[in-house]
Amino acid sequence: MSATLVLGGARSGKSAYAERLALESGKEVVYLATSRAGDAEMAARIAHHRERRPAHWQTVEEELALAASLRAWSASNRIVLVDCLTLWLSNLLFCDGREWPEVGAVTLPERFHAERAALLELLADAPGDIVFVSNEVGMGIVPWGAVSRCFADEAGRLNQDVAARAERVVFVAAGLPLVLKGPRC
Amino acid sequence: MSATLVLGGARSGKSAYAERLALESGKEVVYLATSRAGDAEMAARIAHHRERRPAHWQTVEEELALAASLRAWSASNRIVLVDCLTLWLSNLLFCDGREWPEVGAVTLPERFHAERAALLELLADAPGDIVFVSNEVGMGIVPWGAVSRCFADEAGRLNQDVAARAERVVFVAAGLPLVLKGPRC
Amino acid sequence: MSATLVLGGARSGKSAYAERLALESGKEVVYLATSRAGDAEMAARIAHHRERRPAHWQTVEEELALAASLRAWSASNRIVLVDCLTLWLSNLLFCDGREWPEVGAVTLPERFHAERAALLELLADAPGDIVFVSNEVGMGIVPWGAVSRCFADEAGRLNQDVAARAERVVFVAAGLPLVLKGPRC
Repeated sequence: MSATLVLGGARSGKSAYAERLALESGKEVVYLATSRAGDAEMAARIAHHRERRPAHWQTVEEELALAASLRAWSASNRIVLVDCLTLWLSNLLFCDGREWPEVGAVTLPERFHAERAALLELLADAPGDIVFVSNEVGMGIVPWGAVSRCFADEAGRLNQDVAARAERVVFVAAGLPLVLKGPRC
Repeated sequence: MSATLVLGGARSGKSAYAERLALESGKEVVYLATSRAGDAEMAARIAHHRERRPAHWQTVEEELALAASLRAWSASNRIVLVDCLTLWLSNLLFCDGREWPEVGAVTLPERFHAERAALLELLADAPGDIVFVSNEVGMGIVPWGAVSRCFADEAGRLNQDVAARAERVVFVAAGLPLVLKGPRC
Repeated sequence: MSATLVLGGARSGKSAYAERLALESGKEVVYLATSRAGDAEMAARIAHHRERRPAHWQTVEEELALAASLRAWSASNRIVLVDCLTLWLSNLLFCDGREWPEVGAVTLPERFHAERAALLELLADAPGDIVFVSNEVGMGIVPWGAVSRCFADEAGRLNQDVAARAERVVFVAAGLPLVLKGPRC
């Protein structure tokens, strides 16, 4: 198996790039969406992504149990496209409905730790190929509010941990790829 | 004709790099400013940029009708330096004085769509060289508020569309260029 | 002497990368911390960094007089690791307890200008090696409020000025290095 991480800012073209990778693999593609259509704006974004994808791709939705879903769908003749890790992380941070403090230390939900560990463990033995899409969120001004800072910290840490286990890491800006790890082409 | 996109964060040195490109082209340079000195801070920023530029460069100001202005100024013996696309986009988003909602879907001004389409069309047949400066704004925490998110989305989409039509795309960080597309030097 | 700038977003792995550089130099390492444990969250971040570092590294703390401290500690058989420039800049911007305006032009503290000039001057004649860690903060939405914009401007300018004087500049994303200047490996 082989894991690829496609990293980029908002509207950097990272999803379209990851979709091309999946398409060009020649394998059967499973699209694993981590988002939920919570409001009209989000629904519009999801619809926009869906229109672009080939109709024969299978779509699976999983907001929290990413490792279990990958374990179920990953197979040697398939490529699973996970779009995206950052939304999954955000789902986990808010999964138990807690109140977040404005300042001070934050305790993360138990499930966050369990699901995160399960994902990293899976990367050692998934049978098929996986392409992860993830956001770079740490290159702006450090945001006010403990929750935003905690989110930025966890998103950055997750990107580092997945990148360390991936065979290939590609940074996308303005739709153009820059290989950070692995073969250049 | 040849288009170059110089992309970078705030105070990344992208304008200075673009100015060097223009200077080194050996062509007559037209500096096309998209900003307006709306307040004292903006006026100071504009003055700072102007001091750095050679006195014999012609300066043209155009806040909205970028394609028309490029069509008028682009010529085979000239290079037009557009600084910057992001400000032009912002001018267009606010050009009809509308109220922006805090949440929910946003309808963009008619003129935004028309000017944007005109720019992309022009890139296919401008007679002379153009260097575009543009901001990367999508690598921080996704901002609250529909207008900031919409701006980030549109800025990212425009960068992708211009990058796809440019012969050369250069990412600038800490004043140093990183070629994303086209010849390395 | 040789200066290296390691640039990256929040939680990009830039500190860990800089620590590896220091370790692999084979020289005696002095860790120069510019942070102060102002609150519990900051104390936790500092403790997290400290745990990762070898116990035999000497740690020096200096919030403001960076050039003087570097002059005292830099030596031909040593490498000084400065973590990080962005925090030092922030310490300087707030060093005289002034009120920052919400809008309009900002006057920076005298000491800011003096310390900044002293650092750039030192880079021309420090006897030993220095590794600077610094944040990229300009690739998100331009923040509201004069102080955040001023901070983003000054952080970007400092990165440019240090990068221009460094022999090597490395951009770090998801823990992976991308050489912007100097030898690739």
